Amino acid sequence: MLGRATSFSRVFKHRRHFNKLAGLQSEYNHEDNSYYKYAYFAGAATFGVLGLSHFVKTVKLDHAQEEKQVKKLENLPMYKQEDVKKHGKDAERIWVTYKDGVYDVTDFIPMHPGGDKILLAAGAAVDPFWALYSQHKTAEVLEILEGYRIGRLDVKDVPKAEPDAFSNDPERHPALLVRNAKPFNAESPPSLLTDHFYTPNELFFVRNHLPVPDIKTEDHKLTVETLNGKTIDLSVDELKKKYKSYTIGSVIQCAGNRRADMNQYKKVQGLMWEGTAISNAEWTGVRLRDLLADAGIDVFDEKIKHVHFEGCDVDPTGTPYGASIPMEKARGNEVIVAYHMNGVDIPRDHGAPLRVIVPGNVGARQVKWLRKIIVSEKESDSHWQQKDYRAFSPAVNMGDKLKWDTVPSIQEYPVQCAICTPSPNTKVDRDDGTVDISGYAWSGGGRGIIRIEISVDNGETWSSCEMEQEKNQDPEHMYAWTLFRAEVKIPPGVKEFNIIAKAVDRSYNTQPETASGIWNVRGLIHNAWHRVPIIVKD
Amino acid sequence: MLGRATSFSRVFKHRRHFNKLAGLQSEYNHEDNSYYKYAYFAGAATFGVLGLSHFVKTVKLDHAQEEKQVKKLENLPMYKQEDVKKHGKDAERIWVTYKDGVYDVTDFIPMHPGGDKILLAAGAAVDPFWALYSQHKTAEVLEILEGYRIGRLDVKDVPKAEPDAFSNDPERHPALLVRNAKPFNAESPPSLLTDHFYTPNELFFVRNHLPVPDIKTEDHKLTVETLNGKTIDLSVDELKKKYKSYTIGSVIQCAGNRRADMNQYKKVQGLMWEGTAISNAEWTGVRLRDLLADAGIDVFDEKIKHVHFEGCDVDPTGTPYGASIPMEKARGNEVIVAYHMNGVDIPRDHGAPLRVIVPGNVGARQVKWLRKIIVSEKESDSHWQQKDYRAFSPAVNMGDKLKWDTVPSIQEYPVQCAICTPSPNTKVDRDDGTVDISGYAWSGGGRGIIRIEISVDNGETWSSCEMEQEKNQDPEHMYAWTLFRAEVKIPPGVKEFNIIAKAVDRSYNTQPETASGIWNVRGLIHNAWHRVPIIVKD
Repeated sequence: MLGRATSFSRVFKHRRHFNKLAGLQSEYNHEDNSYYKYAYFAGAATFGVLGLSHFVKTVKLDHAQEEKQVKKLENLPMYKQEDVKKHGKDAERIWVTYKDGVYDVTDFIPMHPGGDKILLAAGAAVDPFWALYSQHKTAEVLEILEGYRIGRLDVKDVPKAEPDAFSNDPERHPALLVRNAKPFNAESPPSLLTDHFYTPNELFFVRNHLPVPDIKTEDHKLTVETLNGKTIDLSVDELKKKYKSYTIGSVIQCAGNRRADMNQYKKVQGLMWEGTAISNAEWTGVRLRDLLADAGIDVFDEKIKHVHFEGCDVDPTGTPYGASIPMEKARGNEVIVAYHMNGVDIPRDHGAPLRVIVPGNVGARQVKWLRKIIVSEKESDSHWQQKDYRAFSPAVNMGDKLKWDTVPSIQEYPVQCAICTPSPNTKVDRDDGTVDISGYAWSGGGRGIIRIEISVDNGETWSSCEMEQEKNQDPEHMYAWTLFRAEVKIPPGVKEFNIIAKAVDRSYNTQPETASGIWNVRGLIHNAWHRVPIIVKD
Repeated sequence: MLGRATSFSRVFKHRRHFNKLAGLQSEYNHEDNSYYKYAYFAGAATFGVLGLSHFVKTVKLDHAQEEKQVKKLENLPMYKQEDVKKHGKDAERIWVTYKDGVYDVTDFIPMHPGGDKILLAAGAAVDPFWALYSQHKTAEVLEILEGYRIGRLDVKDVPKAEPDAFSNDPERHPALLVRNAKPFNAESPPSLLTDHFYTPNELFFVRNHLPVPDIKTEDHKLTVETLNGKTIDLSVDELKKKYKSYTIGSVIQCAGNRRADMNQYKKVQGLMWEGTAISNAEWTGVRLRDLLADAGIDVFDEKIKHVHFEGCDVDPTGTPYGASIPMEKARGNEVIVAYHMNGVDIPRDHGAPLRVIVPGNVGARQVKWLRKIIVSEKESDSHWQQKDYRAFSPAVNMGDKLKWDTVPSIQEYPVQCAICTPSPNTKVDRDDGTVDISGYAWSGGGRGIIRIEISVDNGETWSSCEMEQEKNQDPEHMYAWTLFRAEVKIPPGVKEFNIIAKAVDRSYNTQPETASGIWNVRGLIHNAWHRVPIIVKD
């Protein structure tokens, strides 16, 4: 098992890719090593991009060149945002902006070491991507970019939306794949997800049920209520000062992750999430049980069966989002009321200022914008606890009356695994011989992933993957995910094939082969083997 | 979800079967209601046998008849055990013995309400079966049996075995399906297993690695050893008196259960267990953590990672059987050092006088004939912890060098489910319309079974089953198994079909469809969908 810090043996493969780029680049520039400059252009290189930095050579501009460029800029046309937008990923010419510059990067795309990741910014700004991949911010990379400059952006040109309940939602990173705008629901971009063991906050998938509350941290109060209705109130500052802080790497996954895939098997109801309604972050906060104890609650009191959470997000009737978890889980080491996400204040979309983190459980119980904690003999009677997030039997069909109380609420997640790159229907050259793949695996209840296997012959034979795991977590308490990489051989004599990935967790639980036995009318918890079709070019 | 006490709605189905029996019986006896007498002959009726007792009528023998029978007996021939044995289940005429009577029951078999369960005793004694199904022990049943008397058994004729290390092993119930004689390994008979929520001790599957120790309870000492090597010794009597006792319903399953099924997919190594290397009992004993605390061990000491167990069963070099579990499991409520199994002293085959019960974990860690408990920073270095009971990847093939340390030891079991009745290749009449099925499901870690589904169209459609569960256990702490029953429709227009059963546990873990993704060279933890082929007679 590889620790987080382990560098994957990908450098050599990348070097090979770079040699290919060299061939392409030679049409433009015959200076020795100059192709290295292009390594860093936009988006990210695939895994091991940091490893590549050893190979990058810097080339300085001479003064005369600089002067020439400034002059050239003054004569370039001004473009509006909507002009740039027309040059998106499917356009003939691909444009991007950086600050107030407009660039036609069409000719650069084949040379981008991160492959088509650059297309994530097509028709829009690269700024939010460069913010995530700081290696772009060098004089060399800026110089390359300037070579593609075609104009200037009219920065005053910002389209205004009609005001509604969602108008005050925060700004989001353009790479998020929006599945629903209001309330905002968006997946992490799969092509970037496995670049980071901890998902950058900007790329963390967003699952909102209601408009995003706008809370002034200094005004926020968290109320803890006992069985007798006694309460204590804590400001965020008091909470931070009063209790010991803990940091834990923990996945959040929507119960609907991979629903679109289940829908392919047989129609289901719900938001059509593909495979990245899941992300992994380091959360810092205080233990829930410390808070409960401080409110005078005996966490071993047998009358207390559940702990309810209430958010500040409310529906038009004023009803807040709510959920609950079993007391036994609540008193564990791992459940925290978090105020930091990856070392900074939790962003608004993810629950600012406080979110309960229930490692190993489904996202729906990890209530954002947390304002109230209530201990109880019963489960929360919230809609989202009682009439949603329960997976029915495949014997229950669309149109049947749903007897919600016959099915338990989802808490711990089963074992899950999906491929992030390549994307479905990627075309590969047979001459390449192999395809690089990456993805994630995770299981509920802290059950660490013990292995991940890949098949390109529909499950006849398997090969193992390299795994990247949180080295501070053992297989019995693994709440962060496992990233995996593999180089798979293109099978001989086929025009297309599926890459299949599947995982095994610490309790030797595995995934079903198809949706046949797990299909459910709401399309929840789809964890069948993930298949990515690949097309082979001869 | 149905509690244990719930009676299944099977009585009506059984009544229908009884009406059929009546037709058959009328060839032999035209007295009103006389066929009811035959309901109770040997073996057990299927589910609901107790319900049937309402229908049983008693018929008294008159004195003249009794005298006639005694006279008849004196003239009957004497048979040896080996003569009886020739009339086993595949013989033309089926014989059984009861005490010193020999009976030809061939003509009774079609009328036996328990179906072909009677064949379990074919060529041997019914006594051990009647001991389990006490409803046989009535004058009426004895009378029926006497009608089939053909002779007397030579009771002095007991064949003697050559003495060896296993000569002192205990006697076993003849219904156990022996997979290996020395050491003794035997499955529970599937046709009887689902008759009992708690498996009778006599029918509980047996997995021995070595000869069975013969321990005098009053001489036995259990030693508890701390990190510093300090020990305390306890007699069984002291253990019982000193600590509070707890009773828990808990399954034991061999990691090789259903190996024969995996072997069908692709050859594996190991004892060819079919689907009943699993049983469920109520265990009574003292909490392991109470014992540890009493020995001065801080069960929250972070240095203590594992608790080792050592049995009295030793190999020829004197090395005892051993295993370990994580400390975190050991300090839980559910782990006990048991002295009772289903309310009586643990029988020799199951660990007399003391066995550690680790609910939710694989059988191999639940050490029998327990003599020593040691806390440690490391896992047990026993062969059975380090070089066995670890499931490799399907990428590791027969003949490959097994790198045991790359795979974690099996502790918690994944979700499992199997059909017990009907047996494979049972012939059913299309006119019956339906087939009754029964089986078990269980998952590790206390994750209760939330549902079980059946398909007769290879997973296209599913129907739900009635479940019988331990009502004192909640779905988060369900260590006993779930029995299930269903009546499935014979699909139209087929000459044969598979019944498939599969389960879902509290964490929504499910089973893989086939062995394709879980095949491993040692054939461990086979939990693919269980398929039972059925033949339809038109």
